[in-house]
Amino acid sequence: MGGGRPYPYRGYLMTWNIYLAGEIHSDWRDKIIDGSAKENLPVVFSSPVTDHAASDNCGPAFLGSDSDGFWKDHKSAKINAIRTRTSIGQADVVVVRFGEHYRQWNAAFDAGYAVAMGKPLVTLHDADLQHALKEVDATALAVASTAQQVVDILNYVINQK
Amino acid sequence: MGGGRPYPYRGYLMTWNIYLAGEIHSDWRDKIIDGSAKENLPVVFSSPVTDHAASDNCGPAFLGSDSDGFWKDHKSAKINAIRTRTSIGQADVVVVRFGEHYRQWNAAFDAGYAVAMGKPLVTLHDADLQHALKEVDATALAVASTAQQVVDILNYVINQK
Amino acid sequence: MGGGRPYPYRGYLMTWNIYLAGEIHSDWRDKIIDGSAKENLPVVFSSPVTDHAASDNCGPAFLGSDSDGFWKDHKSAKINAIRTRTSIGQADVVVVRFGEHYRQWNAAFDAGYAVAMGKPLVTLHDADLQHALKEVDATALAVASTAQQVVDILNYVINQK
Amino acid sequence: MGGGRPYPYRGYLMTWNIYLAGEIHSDWRDKIIDGSAKENLPVVFSSPVTDHAASDNCGPAFLGSDSDGFWKDHKSAKINAIRTRTSIGQADVVVVRFGEHYRQWNAAFDAGYAVAMGKPLVTLHDADLQHALKEVDATALAVASTAQQVVDILNYVINQK
Amino acid sequence: MGGGRPYPYRGYLMTWNIYLAGEIHSDWRDKIIDGSAKENLPVVFSSPVTDHAASDNCGPAFLGSDSDGFWKDHKSAKINAIRTRTSIGQADVVVVRFGEHYRQWNAAFDAGYAVAMGKPLVTLHDADLQHALKEVDATALAVASTAQQVVDILNYVINQK
Amino acid sequence: MGGGRPYPYRGYLMTWNIYLAGEIHSDWRDKIIDGSAKENLPVVFSSPVTDHAASDNCGPAFLGSDSDGFWKDHKSAKINAIRTRTSIGQADVVVVRFGEHYRQWNAAFDAGYAVAMGKPLVTLHDADLQHALKEVDATALAVASTAQQVVDILNYVINQK
Amino acid sequence: MGGGRPYPYRGYLMTWNIYLAGEIHSDWRDKIIDGSAKENLPVVFSSPVTDHAASDNCGPAFLGSDSDGFWKDHKSAKINAIRTRTSIGQADVVVVRFGEHYRQWNAAFDAGYAVAMGKPLVTLHDADLQHALKEVDATALAVASTAQQVVDILNYVINQK
Amino acid sequence: MGGGRPYPYRGYLMTWNIYLAGEIHSDWRDKIIDGSAKENLPVVFSSPVTDHAASDNCGPAFLGSDSDGFWKDHKSAKINAIRTRTSIGQADVVVVRFGEHYRQWNAAFDAGYAVAMGKPLVTLHDADLQHALKEVDATALAVASTAQQVVDILNYVINQK
Repeated sequence: MGGGRPYPYRGYLMTWNIYLAGEIHSDWRDKIIDGSAKENLPVVFSSPVTDHAASDNCGPAFLGSDSDGFWKDHKSAKINAIRTRTSIGQADVVVVRFGEHYRQWNAAFDAGYAVAMGKPLVTLHDADLQHALKEVDATALAVASTAQQVVDILNYVINQK
Repeated sequence: MGGGRPYPYRGYLMTWNIYLAGEIHSDWRDKIIDGSAKENLPVVFSSPVTDHAASDNCGPAFLGSDSDGFWKDHKSAKINAIRTRTSIGQADVVVVRFGEHYRQWNAAFDAGYAVAMGKPLVTLHDADLQHALKEVDATALAVASTAQQVVDILNYVINQK
Repeated sequence: MGGGRPYPYRGYLMTWNIYLAGEIHSDWRDKIIDGSAKENLPVVFSSPVTDHAASDNCGPAFLGSDSDGFWKDHKSAKINAIRTRTSIGQADVVVVRFGEHYRQWNAAFDAGYAVAMGKPLVTLHDADLQHALKEVDATALAVASTAQQVVDILNYVINQK
Repeated sequence: MGGGRPYPYRGYLMTWNIYLAGEIHSDWRDKIIDGSAKENLPVVFSSPVTDHAASDNCGPAFLGSDSDGFWKDHKSAKINAIRTRTSIGQADVVVVRFGEHYRQWNAAFDAGYAVAMGKPLVTLHDADLQHALKEVDATALAVASTAQQVVDILNYVINQK
Repeated sequence: MGGGRPYPYRGYLMTWNIYLAGEIHSDWRDKIIDGSAKENLPVVFSSPVTDHAASDNCGPAFLGSDSDGFWKDHKSAKINAIRTRTSIGQADVVVVRFGEHYRQWNAAFDAGYAVAMGKPLVTLHDADLQHALKEVDATALAVASTAQQVVDILNYVINQK
Repeated sequence: MGGGRPYPYRGYLMTWNIYLAGEIHSDWRDKIIDGSAKENLPVVFSSPVTDHAASDNCGPAFLGSDSDGFWKDHKSAKINAIRTRTSIGQADVVVVRFGEHYRQWNAAFDAGYAVAMGKPLVTLHDADLQHALKEVDATALAVASTAQQVVDILNYVINQK
Repeated sequence: MGGGRPYPYRGYLMTWNIYLAGEIHSDWRDKIIDGSAKENLPVVFSSPVTDHAASDNCGPAFLGSDSDGFWKDHKSAKINAIRTRTSIGQADVVVVRFGEHYRQWNAAFDAGYAVAMGKPLVTLHDADLQHALKEVDATALAVASTAQQVVDILNYVINQK
Repeated sequence: MGGGRPYPYRGYLMTWNIYLAGEIHSDWRDKIIDGSAKENLPVVFSSPVTDHAASDNCGPAFLGSDSDGFWKDHKSAKINAIRTRTSIGQADVVVVRFGEHYRQWNAAFDAGYAVAMGKPLVTLHDADLQHALKEVDATALAVASTAQQVVDILNYVINQK
């Protein structure tokens, strides 16, 4: 099934939906998107809302403020879930990035949610988080430490190269 | 993942299917459709048949009349279910509007049906219905009181703004 | 497969779980339970919490009070959902009673939730609610107007008599 | 459906399976188990392996050692998953405890996995973790801060008191 | 894993639920039940209501009469479905008997329903119905022509003999 | 949501997949296709192979002959199932036609299979088959007696007219 | 949650169903059963029919002989599938043994079937089959090389020791 | 529903996704693709990575080398699973080829995985593998011995000829 054959062949036709979950304070998403564009991969990306302030404030911004911080958070988190659940549900591959900072429990939650839905999971994190992430990594089909590795894997699973 | 990047990015590609269930005697659907058009949202809407008389009479109109009102209603309700079940099944988000008038048990039924299928639910109703709708609202990812709030939420979850 | 045969036969062995949803201000549940006991039916019943005050107050009672009524309702409704969702999930048959009073949107929500899970639904209501309930009734496998009819149907589907 | 009635009634018959996920370095599980025993609740509990050293070492202990720490962790995490997945799959309610220490990504992963399987989730954590856990809490049916609250909620949803 | 070993072994513990669908005007069910009893098989059987008149009349008998025969049939068929759907849903094996008489579309419907739910299907019919039943037989795991063959197969798959 | 509005509205965008199962010896499919074309409905149709001889012979024609008629039928029926299962799985609505001739157990099987998959079912048959089809009709969302009624119902559920 | 506590605790109550698939020409099943009995594990075991001749001949033995070997095999394989599918469906853990001899494609098929159903998979094979089994092992939660390792793992995941 | 009719008809519109699993050391895929192109079939094909060396080495190539061959295989097999699971999940028909050489347990695993997901399975192998593949063939909707037979079957199920 070599390159350039004029036969109908789905590897060239299917567009892969990649959901990029997790850390929002570094440029790892841009690296994966740039790397994929450079390889001309037939992929589209989705992500949670990556604007931290908007993500925190969407509840009171759209539905009115609350005196209690818990409910402000609650309203915002639920609105954000409309986006994240829909995106995970439509994803072909879910990539979850864990960084050094913050607790990122939502990233681990999304990983568990994705795995239970049968989505192929790729984790992306530095080696020193290995032990803390062992249960999550044990459910992943690839454990990457750089964005370029994710691009390489996508290129390989899509284009066989 | 800023605006205007030429990279493939699904947030700009996916068309969201929004099902608008519930009250058929006010113009809340038009407000959401108009508001979404104004924001140029990549959404398509579906709804139950909103012509009350047609909805009540479709059974006898297409399949013959019955002397017993129960069976007239039964036939009509089942034909309408072809539309509503199919539409809910294909929806990405289900919005259910509860108004002051009528019992609207079908609206609550649709909400329960949608939630059991894993669809994100948004409810839309006035504050004075809050207590009566507490079980339904407890399953919703957003509880709105105006059509514009629904538009704002759709804009945010789709466009991150 | 006549009565009294000593062969192993499941009709006599299976215990049916019946969930009784809906109206909590009349004695319809007791009538069904009494009637079933009289027929010695192999059934067990479950229901939502039927103590109205307890149901409304469980949120603040167990998890602390809120100044905002919406969140009080929200907390209570979610705690009640632990019971109702679990019970519906384990039910073999779901009976939903609609009465004259209150809006009972939670009853209709439970009916929709049960139907989407593939549970056989029996509705119980007076004839004058027929038109308002036509969409719900259209999904039911039986539409009863008295508690005794529900007992008769259970007796028949379980014992073939 | 009062107490002590001799009728068949499932609330008294069903045994609830409660899975206790998360933190393993405090006695919160014992408090819930003790509290439930005091109330004579018809519950059985399951949990991950709570012996930290055993949990870390089960891979090499049973299947041979590895020079690379990643694979030691990998083998152990997978063996532990046999227990955790099976237990979550059979649970009626999943309680997840988040403590102050460690990253506890596996607790958040289990929460996501449980929610995607439709399990009612109860979270248990101190108030100061509220913001970090907002996405997880938004999917929970109850957010408790003490073990006794969990016992109270179980007592209520099971026994209506 | 020979006979009589004192080890825990599930083949001896599990009770198989066998649903016997289809023809109600011959004694094939009794033959399978008698044959299974003779072999002391750990099976329980369920079936649709096999009293033809009761099956036809249950709708008007319990829920009131209708002037239109269609609705009389409709009500009865739905009540019977409470029994048949529940029983198929709990069955480990579904046996469907097709006889010479009547159209028996409900038997074929039950077969399709069972196969779509992943239930192992055994058909039972004379050789001269082979061509007419080829699509149904093609989905069956065994096509038997006598009740004794069904007993033999149950004995073999349960007891390995 | 009146006709001709320029807003994005899914009723006009979605193409409905209609599977036409059952009788292959009359022109009912052509009538539905012609009628739908006349109304310019946004529908595509699929069906089993409707060439009776080809349907019976596809097994030996492609995979070699068998001396035993049972296996000839078996091979053919399984090949045909590749088409019918795939088509039912992708259908939005399943229409099943029952005629006077032949036993048509495959039509009833397809109906059962479709209902178990949650597909809206429409049956099409003459009034004198009503009693024999009562169990199948009881699961249908519409029971039509003419092809034009099916077209009318499709037009209504798609176009609200 | 230490040993011997009188509290209700499910680890001691649940009986685990273990399906032992694969090689039938060595005594690995007996070793696992004996080892589990020695540890008094709360497990029950199931397996395919392990009598090779019976397994091959059950089709013609029960349903009549065929001149064509393909159909003899076909009938036997389908009857055996009644047992294997049912057992896998009810298993909590699936152990698949691959030996040196025969192709054992059915063992690998069962592994794929079990994984797709979400069952925890344990593989058991010698080290020299590692490369040939890499895709199967990659889906397993444990890769054992001796029966005792399987017993140890069961003991650990059940009893935490 | 003859050829050339201008009506909307899905047989002509749907593109079928065919996954070609199994043997990678002969040209059977090219034969099916060429044969399908000759018939102008509306099909797209997908497959596992068919470059044996790339398939074996993708793990260390992208994610770093391991001293232990087991983990090298493990990493590679998991990356390949991203492609194979996704492709099987989107396939309409899964064709699995078994050849004379190698053990091909991954081919049998893929067959089991596909069948459990409800995918129509076609096997392709020489007659002398019939007995070894009886369990796999028993789950297939067609058992072919040449690539041209697969093309013929696709042509028939898609184009009714």
